[in-house]
Amino acid sequence: MAKKPTWVIEKEQAKRAAAAETIWLFGLHAVRDALMNPARQKLRLVVTKNAADKLGDAIATGGVEPEMADPRKFLVPLDPGSVHQGAALEVKQLDWGPLAEIAVSGAGAPLLLLLDRVTDPHNVGAILRSAEVFGARAVIAPSRYSAPETGALAKTASGALERQPYIRVKNLGDTMLELKKLGYVLFGLDGEGTAEIGAAAAEHAGKPVALVLGAEGPGLRERTRALCDHLVRIPAAGDFGSLNVSNAAAVSLYAVSKG
Amino acid sequence: MAKKPTWVIEKEQAKRAAAAETIWLFGLHAVRDALMNPARQKLRLVVTKNAADKLGDAIATGGVEPEMADPRKFLVPLDPGSVHQGAALEVKQLDWGPLAEIAVSGAGAPLLLLLDRVTDPHNVGAILRSAEVFGARAVIAPSRYSAPETGALAKTASGALERQPYIRVKNLGDTMLELKKLGYVLFGLDGEGTAEIGAAAAEHAGKPVALVLGAEGPGLRERTRALCDHLVRIPAAGDFGSLNVSNAAAVSLYAVSKG
Repeated sequence: MAKKPTWVIEKEQAKRAAAAETIWLFGLHAVRDALMNPARQKLRLVVTKNAADKLGDAIATGGVEPEMADPRKFLVPLDPGSVHQGAALEVKQLDWGPLAEIAVSGAGAPLLLLLDRVTDPHNVGAILRSAEVFGARAVIAPSRYSAPETGALAKTASGALERQPYIRVKNLGDTMLELKKLGYVLFGLDGEGTAEIGAAAAEHAGKPVALVLGAEGPGLRERTRALCDHLVRIPAAGDFGSLNVSNAAAVSLYAVSKG
Repeated sequence: MAKKPTWVIEKEQAKRAAAAETIWLFGLHAVRDALMNPARQKLRLVVTKNAADKLGDAIATGGVEPEMADPRKFLVPLDPGSVHQGAALEVKQLDWGPLAEIAVSGAGAPLLLLLDRVTDPHNVGAILRSAEVFGARAVIAPSRYSAPETGALAKTASGALERQPYIRVKNLGDTMLELKKLGYVLFGLDGEGTAEIGAAAAEHAGKPVALVLGAEGPGLRERTRALCDHLVRIPAAGDFGSLNVSNAAAVSLYAVSKG
């Protein structure tokens, strides 16, 4: 048998590492939603008596035996200050399958949201909620310099993490090229954008749209910006101030989803 | 001289207490914006050498003598975990004057945002940014059960706290009645709302509009809801999920400000 080339070995190793990675979700809401999600691989559930009572139905549905814990000795590897409410669930990352499939045949209108280096889990959590409300097929971020699927993100996402595809890709630019081939029009949000987002959305009504947002401050990276079909802006009343990135995402999703 | 009635004495006491109250702002951005704001009463500025270098111009403008501090001995009463970046400024609350004046003759289009028991400073900070971007004349909240003007709020508001009127009133319902008399149409954001916000905004284009948002979960309180002229909703693609309150505020402001 021929020896595998190094890049194949590395790719396989990365895949195995990702598969081995687990996350601790915490808090009643996040744990309940994950327990109720049949697509979510559940490994360990640690609960206090009190939390177990509140999660009764979800525990019955989830199919993972709860380990009872003393509230004063809740031995779960969470970040200090995590408000776990007596419930923690170890899970695997969700596998949403290939992006191209979701982009082409996902439910609802063809709408995607791309995040260029948005790393704050609270912002990404809020963005997942908005993406779900406005029916985006997926939120896409690069695997590096983005907010990984963590307990903190799940908590801010308030259940949306279980239902809203959040897909991390190796290279955002390559993904943008792929989406263009699939017929998506790429709108980059940018303060210098020439068109207002509402007007741009109306002009391209009926077409698949991908919204691209950068991090606050640096904004879109050069290659990301160059790959956008149009740079659009959210109209502002004055010269001062700027939107928080999750608010910019919500406004953009609203503007585009209403066409 | 006639004895003052108790309610007058209490009102005067409350006024004096509020005037005596000070806030510690922290972080380079918040401190710089407050130093540059001539309307902001500044009491003490504590900075490290490094922060003083970065704030050079603002310190010259601010007119308060900096007290130099050792980065390892930064003795300022901040909450633990506050990322102060070596800069803290003790200030008085901003006085925006009477609400009626701002509501009637504030700059830009007549647009207000009312928050019914939104207590999270991060959400309110993000909301102030959005209010500024979309030109709301004021963000209004009850003095109790709201997010007070604090260093944490100022930091999330990213400068907007200095420029965007944030007015706390004794009774939100009474303020709503007052705004109605001033000609404002009150839109309450509510998942059960019959009209979509975009349609409602178009129908009332040109009129002064006040948007009323409740806290996540409880939503609008009963009296607040009853006092709204219309209950409106943000259109959603599916049955699941909900927007974070600051995202709902941003979308509403966008929908109304574009008319």
